[in-house]
Amino acid sequence: MVCEKLPQLGSGNQGLEYLFHPRSIAVVGVSQDDTNWGRMFLLPLIQFQYQGNLYPVGLQDGEIAGMKIYRSILDIPGPLDYVICCIPAQFTPQLVEDCVKKKVRAVQFFTSGFSESGEENGKELEQRLVDIARCGSVRIIGPNSLGIYCPSQGLTFLNTAPSLAKSGKVGFLFQSGGNSRELIEIGSTRGIYFSKGVSYGNACDLNESDFLEYLAWDKETEIIGIYIEGVKEGQRFFKALKGVAKIKPTIMLKGGRTQAGSQAAASHTGSLAGTMFVWEAVCQQTGAILVDDLDEMMDLMLAFSYLEPPSGRRVSIIGNSGGRTVQSADVCESAGLSVPSFSAAIRDTLREFIPETGASIRNPVDSYFLGWTPLLLSRTLGVLGSYDGIDLLIIDIPVTISLLGFGGHDDVRAQVETIKDFKTKCHKPVVAVVSYEGTPDILQFGFELQRAFIAGGIPVYYSMTRAARALSRFISYYKKDPS
Amino acid sequence: MVCEKLPQLGSGNQGLEYLFHPRSIAVVGVSQDDTNWGRMFLLPLIQFQYQGNLYPVGLQDGEIAGMKIYRSILDIPGPLDYVICCIPAQFTPQLVEDCVKKKVRAVQFFTSGFSESGEENGKELEQRLVDIARCGSVRIIGPNSLGIYCPSQGLTFLNTAPSLAKSGKVGFLFQSGGNSRELIEIGSTRGIYFSKGVSYGNACDLNESDFLEYLAWDKETEIIGIYIEGVKEGQRFFKALKGVAKIKPTIMLKGGRTQAGSQAAASHTGSLAGTMFVWEAVCQQTGAILVDDLDEMMDLMLAFSYLEPPSGRRVSIIGNSGGRTVQSADVCESAGLSVPSFSAAIRDTLREFIPETGASIRNPVDSYFLGWTPLLLSRTLGVLGSYDGIDLLIIDIPVTISLLGFGGHDDVRAQVETIKDFKTKCHKPVVAVVSYEGTPDILQFGFELQRAFIAGGIPVYYSMTRAARALSRFISYYKKDPS
Repeated sequence: MVCEKLPQLGSGNQGLEYLFHPRSIAVVGVSQDDTNWGRMFLLPLIQFQYQGNLYPVGLQDGEIAGMKIYRSILDIPGPLDYVICCIPAQFTPQLVEDCVKKKVRAVQFFTSGFSESGEENGKELEQRLVDIARCGSVRIIGPNSLGIYCPSQGLTFLNTAPSLAKSGKVGFLFQSGGNSRELIEIGSTRGIYFSKGVSYGNACDLNESDFLEYLAWDKETEIIGIYIEGVKEGQRFFKALKGVAKIKPTIMLKGGRTQAGSQAAASHTGSLAGTMFVWEAVCQQTGAILVDDLDEMMDLMLAFSYLEPPSGRRVSIIGNSGGRTVQSADVCESAGLSVPSFSAAIRDTLREFIPETGASIRNPVDSYFLGWTPLLLSRTLGVLGSYDGIDLLIIDIPVTISLLGFGGHDDVRAQVETIKDFKTKCHKPVVAVVSYEGTPDILQFGFELQRAFIAGGIPVYYSMTRAARALSRFISYYKKDPS
Repeated sequence: MVCEKLPQLGSGNQGLEYLFHPRSIAVVGVSQDDTNWGRMFLLPLIQFQYQGNLYPVGLQDGEIAGMKIYRSILDIPGPLDYVICCIPAQFTPQLVEDCVKKKVRAVQFFTSGFSESGEENGKELEQRLVDIARCGSVRIIGPNSLGIYCPSQGLTFLNTAPSLAKSGKVGFLFQSGGNSRELIEIGSTRGIYFSKGVSYGNACDLNESDFLEYLAWDKETEIIGIYIEGVKEGQRFFKALKGVAKIKPTIMLKGGRTQAGSQAAASHTGSLAGTMFVWEAVCQQTGAILVDDLDEMMDLMLAFSYLEPPSGRRVSIIGNSGGRTVQSADVCESAGLSVPSFSAAIRDTLREFIPETGASIRNPVDSYFLGWTPLLLSRTLGVLGSYDGIDLLIIDIPVTISLLGFGGHDDVRAQVETIKDFKTKCHKPVVAVVSYEGTPDILQFGFELQRAFIAGGIPVYYSMTRAARALSRFISYYKKDPS
C-alpha cells in the first residue's frame, strides 16, 4: 500500500488544532502487565480526566480499567481520531494500513527502532509508514516519541497523573520524550503551567515546523519552549521562528551542540545536529533565546510566566546576611543587571526604621541580624516599591541560614505573607530567591514557601545566580539589547 | 591603656594552633532571653560537646544550662584562653582591658559597629581595641565575625548543633559569618566535612594572611576554601597563597568583585574590595581556583574531598533517557571534558547484553527505556570500569523522571547499591548526578539517595552542568592546563 502524494491536510497553523482535541483515542499494544507501556499511556489518560472515548487495543482478551480490550482498531465501534502506538516496530506498517481504513486522523508512535537506530532497515521501515499514511489522510507523530500533552483536554504522556500540573500559557515543542517529561514535572513544581506541548521524536511526517507554526497561531500559548536536535525543513523553521519569537518569547535548547552531543543525538532521534555556530546565528537573527540546559529554560519560562516587562535593569535586593548580600550584588551585576545605590532621600527614609549597625540601608538592603520582622520588611518594601530609582525587586530568603539564625518557621512564613501582601499593591516586578538545599526538614519547608510564593504570583528561583541570569535575559528580550 | 608594640606571639603557621584548642572559653554578654546572641553562642558549644571549661558572663545573676553566670571575666576562677564577645561596641574596650589582665590568649568579637559602619568613631573604636590588646598578649578575631569552627574540638558558631556535621579535611577562611554558616550547613548535607575554619570579619588584628599561613601548615587541612572581601596585607597574602595553592587545592570566592558588590562589601566588613581583574591575575599566578558563587565552591570541595586525580579528561556517562544523555554529552564537552566514542571492541561487548533499540551503547550509554536492572547496570559498569579509553565515570540518576518511568523507589535504591558495590572495586573516579527537584516525596527520596552515595564515597552533584564544570576545573588543577 503505497500512494504518491500527501493530501493537503492543513499542516501547521490551525490545521493541527484537531491533534489537541481528539474525540476518541485508541492505545494500541495494551496488556494488563505492570510494565506494559500501552497500559502506562492508557491509565494516566483516565486519571488526567480525558473526556473523549478511550479504547485499549491489545492481544489479550478481557478488560482493563473497566474497558474492553479490542483486538484491532478496526473492531472499534464509531469514529477514531487518534492512535497511540506501543507495539513493536515490525507490526507498525499493518497498524498504519488499519489507520487508513479506519480514517484515523493521526497516529503517534511511542515505538522506536526506526531511523534513530542508524540501520538501513530502520530508515526504510520509517519511510514505509509515511508512504502508507499518504494513501489516506493519516498524519504521523514520531516515531520514537511521546506525543501530545494538553492538560485542558486531559491529554498526557506522563506515567503518573502530575500532582501539580494545570493548564497555563507555556507551549512546548520537544524532540525528546524524557526531557519533556522532566519539563512538565519540574515545571509544574515551580509554577510553570502548560497550554499544549508535543514530544515529536524522529519527525518522519509532522515535524518541528508544523508544530511551531501551530503554537505560533494558538491563542492559548503565549510562551514557547523548544528542545531540538535536528531540523527537517531548515528554511521553513527559520521563517516560523522569526515570525513567532518577536511576538511570543521563544526559548530554545539545542541538543547535539558538541561533537559528543551530536553523536548522541544521531542515535537518539536520528538527527543531523548541525553546529552550534549556526544555532547561535539563528537565535540572534530571529530573537529566540538560546539556553544551555533545561534548568535555564525553566528559569526563563518562569520569568515570562509571572512578570510584567520591567522598566529597566535596576534591581533592589532585599538581603539576608552580609556576605550573601555582597555576593548577591556581585552576581546581579555580573549577569548584566544594575544594583544602583539608593538616593540620599531613600537612605534617610530607611534610616528612620533600620539602624545602620549590623544592617545595611544601601542597596542591597540587609537587616538579617536585626531580624526581618513583618513590620520592618513591610516598611522597607513600601519605600522601595514606590521609589522610581529601581525597576524590580529581588527578595532573598535563604531557608537554610534563616532557620539557623533568627526566628523559626513561623517567622519566615510571616515574611512570605508580608511579601505576598506587598505584591498585591506593587507595580514593579517582584522575584523571590528561596534557596533550600539541606536536610529533609529544610527541603520540606523550602517547598512550602515556594508554593506559597507561587500562589501569590511571585516566581521563585533556587539561587541568586540563576535568578540574575534569567532576569537579565528576560529584560533583554524586551529591551532588545544583547544579554 | 595603650602600648606600643605587639609582642611576637607567633602569628601564622603553628602559632595559631592554640585558637583551635582553647582549654577554656568565656561567652560574654549572655542572658536567659531566647533572642540573646550570647546564649546562641553558648548553648551550641554544649550540644557540640566542647570538652574544655565553659563560662557564661553577663549582667544577670543566676545560672544558664546549669552554669553560673559571672559578672566579669575577672571573676572566673582559673585560666581563661578564649573569649567570645557579644556585648555592645561601647563596652568592648573595657572587656579587652580585662582580657589583658586575665591573660586571655584571644578574644573574638561577634559585636559589630566598628570600621564596617563607615563612621569615623567606629574606626577609632576598632583601633582602640587593638591598642589595648597590644599591652598584653591578647589577639583579636574580628570584630564583626563569628570566630572559630573546629568540630573535632566541639567548637562551633552555628546556632543549632549541625545535624550532619563531622570532622573532615576541608579548612575555610571566610570573611563573612553568614556565608560560613551556609558553607558548613549545606556542605555537611553534601558530605563536605571540615577540619578547621574561621569567620574573621573586619580583621583588625589577626587577618587573612595569619589564618591562611596556619591552614597551610595544619596537617588536618588538605583542601582550603576562602571567601574574601578585602585584604589587609596584600604581598603577604599573595605569598602565602602561592605557597599553599600548589600543595593544597585552594578555592577562592571574591566578594565585592563588581561595583555594587564592592559597595556592599565596604558596609559589610569595611573592606576595599579591589578589582576583579587583579583577583583573576592573583589566582592565575598562584594556582588558586577562582569561583563565581558558593555553590561552585562546594561543587569543587566535593570533588577534591572524594576523588583521586583522574588520568585524563575522558568521561563515560551512564545515562537515563535519550534527550538527557544528549544534553549530558553537550554540557560535559562544553565544560571542557571529553566524551569519546567507545572502541568497537567495547561496543561489541556492550551489545551482548544491551539491545540497541530504545537504548544506546555509544557514549553516553543509555538503557533508560529498558530499565537499568542491577544486573544490566553492573555488567555495564564492569565493562567501562576496566576500559582504558576513559578516565572517569559519571552516572546520571534523574530522580524525578526515574520515578515517573520504570520502577519505583526500590528499583532506584537497587541501582544505587549496585553503583556503590562497583565503586569498591573500581580504580577510576566515580561521580553521581542526582537531580531531585520536585514535590516533597521526590525531595525526601533524592536526599536519601544522596546520603547513600556519600556513605559509599561517591560525590553527588545536583545537575550534569554543575558536575561537568566542577570536574573540568578539578582535572585542570592537576593537569595545570587552563579550564
